[in-house]
Amino acid sequence: MAKRNHYGVILAGGSGTRFWPRSRRRTPKQLLPFLNEASLIQETAERLRPVIPPERLWVLTNEALRRRVIRQLPEVPARQILAEPVARNTAPAIGLAAQVLGSIDKDAVLGVFPSDHLVARPARFRRLVKAAYRGAEAGRLMVLGIEPRWPETGYGYIEFPAGTEPGALTPAPVIRFLEKPDLKTAKRLVRAKRFGWNAGMFFWRASRFLEELRQHCPKTASLLASLPALGNRSFQSALRTSFPRMESISVDYAVLEKAERVHGLAADDIGWNDLGSWNAVYELLARSRGANVERSESVVLDGNGNYVDAPGKMVALLGVDDLIVVDTPDALLVTKRERAQDVRDVVARLRDLKREDLL
Amino acid sequence: MAKRNHYGVILAGGSGTRFWPRSRRRTPKQLLPFLNEASLIQETAERLRPVIPPERLWVLTNEALRRRVIRQLPEVPARQILAEPVARNTAPAIGLAAQVLGSIDKDAVLGVFPSDHLVARPARFRRLVKAAYRGAEAGRLMVLGIEPRWPETGYGYIEFPAGTEPGALTPAPVIRFLEKPDLKTAKRLVRAKRFGWNAGMFFWRASRFLEELRQHCPKTASLLASLPALGNRSFQSALRTSFPRMESISVDYAVLEKAERVHGLAADDIGWNDLGSWNAVYELLARSRGANVERSESVVLDGNGNYVDAPGKMVALLGVDDLIVVDTPDALLVTKRERAQDVRDVVARLRDLKREDLL
Repeated sequence: MAKRNHYGVILAGGSGTRFWPRSRRRTPKQLLPFLNEASLIQETAERLRPVIPPERLWVLTNEALRRRVIRQLPEVPARQILAEPVARNTAPAIGLAAQVLGSIDKDAVLGVFPSDHLVARPARFRRLVKAAYRGAEAGRLMVLGIEPRWPETGYGYIEFPAGTEPGALTPAPVIRFLEKPDLKTAKRLVRAKRFGWNAGMFFWRASRFLEELRQHCPKTASLLASLPALGNRSFQSALRTSFPRMESISVDYAVLEKAERVHGLAADDIGWNDLGSWNAVYELLARSRGANVERSESVVLDGNGNYVDAPGKMVALLGVDDLIVVDTPDALLVTKRERAQDVRDVVARLRDLKREDLL
Repeated sequence: MAKRNHYGVILAGGSGTRFWPRSRRRTPKQLLPFLNEASLIQETAERLRPVIPPERLWVLTNEALRRRVIRQLPEVPARQILAEPVARNTAPAIGLAAQVLGSIDKDAVLGVFPSDHLVARPARFRRLVKAAYRGAEAGRLMVLGIEPRWPETGYGYIEFPAGTEPGALTPAPVIRFLEKPDLKTAKRLVRAKRFGWNAGMFFWRASRFLEELRQHCPKTASLLASLPALGNRSFQSALRTSFPRMESISVDYAVLEKAERVHGLAADDIGWNDLGSWNAVYELLARSRGANVERSESVVLDGNGNYVDAPGKMVALLGVDDLIVVDTPDALLVTKRERAQDVRDVVARLRDLKREDLL
């Protein structure tokens, strides 16, 4: 049974650009469906439901997205969907959640979850999450390490003591955090068997986290402490004044790499995927659907490895391989799967061209 | 000055499929604009105007397209836009024109022109056309041979006597017609300097052509001869009965390869292009526009040799080369330029799938 002082905090302020032209500033990745009918943030809430029911779920998003998040998560009370006035990375956002939850419930234990990842094995995931909450309850800063499946250079890594068993539910001390490694290092880390990917999921008491902030980000901590209570009518205006003054820094750099007594759980295969690009979507779906992944009507002649996404339209591919084709009413993307990460460069170009209508 | 007994006959019954998804059964290639605002049939009529004014222009099309052709060529009297009840290739179509024109004007000289080709140098073209009409006036069957620019295997060739000067305006006897050659033969023909591409432009007296038909296609000739006059109210119904019974055969096979006294003009460079595929459009435009040909708004990062055609839409190409991307409201084509000829296979597949809505 879920404990009353366990809260979920979903971070949904991201404005990822790698899913353009489907994702736009007002409909970023977390608000889009990818594999199912539900959006990624809806799936995140649904996945947590047996552990954290909607009434103890909180969301941090931005002002432009708040209304849409409220509409997508009708079971989460609207007052629990907070808008950051500006983007300040994860440390101030989680600090704000800790401040607000800590003043509502001095025993609050927070679980922090990205809103735009995928977990194919939610039951295994929840088993770990429950254990992580238990570890946090005891005063630890807890992280989850995902068993690495390839030498990814785009993630940070967490080092566990040798012999830490993936899927074991006992917290293991974290030896160190490693920033995104180069390929050679990444290969070594995967081989070493005691490193996990840092998937951005954290568990801690609100009070413990605010203590850490006071020590490592004193300015942010004091700005947070001076906020009026959430119900107060001056809350949002005070937030608008103080939030932009907080340090823009990730929780990893600000706290985790410096704090004492950081522990973690080495996850077994929970089917985690951060859906980093259109190619990640392709690869996930290609396992079940074969040579081409077609999310709309299509005719493929002499082509393999293509991802086609053009709702309401017939797409004909002739003699092309490994393409990503994503069509929307006002914009069309055609790229190679291996270039999927660089879709953000297209968005940057459109920004330079002042094509606000397409961002 | 144009002579009163010279008539132009534009063949516009084609239903080419290589420009899908832009071209459809109801808007085939000849009714589409490619390089300019005007459609190819409109450009054809405009190009002929100084030689053949609209009042002496006749068009052969099919019943599905007749209304659209009338709208596109408002200066051509509607009664001169004839609909073939079924497609029977070029011999019956030209026979029909000869029959109708011959009964209106026993001295009629016909120039036959495809409706979907391009001529970049219309003044040179008209100089040749006038000379061809003069040659036909004297009773010859006249053809135009286009100076070959590469060893094309998709066209027929016309052999002229050695020493025939391209651009000379004196009719030269045609030694023979060669069907589409293999590449080795085509290379030899180009080197030999006395072969021209058969571009499907013919000039002859109506009376002479009907004589040839009587000799080589007697059934077609007699069906044509029994048609009532064009103004007669039973004309169209008689045509619907007799036209399907005519031999489906090209004028090349039916008449030109068998007839005596076939003459031709070896054209100098009139900038002829039959726009055989999207790649032909690309190549024509690439000369002036550089690496990528973009007929809509687009952003190309790390890409060369692409053809983009998506009106009203921003197209982003990232890291792709030599693609053809053509977008329409209900269908999108992505192919390699080298596969442009095979777009008809896509159409064939759609036909198999009974997707009438997309044909």
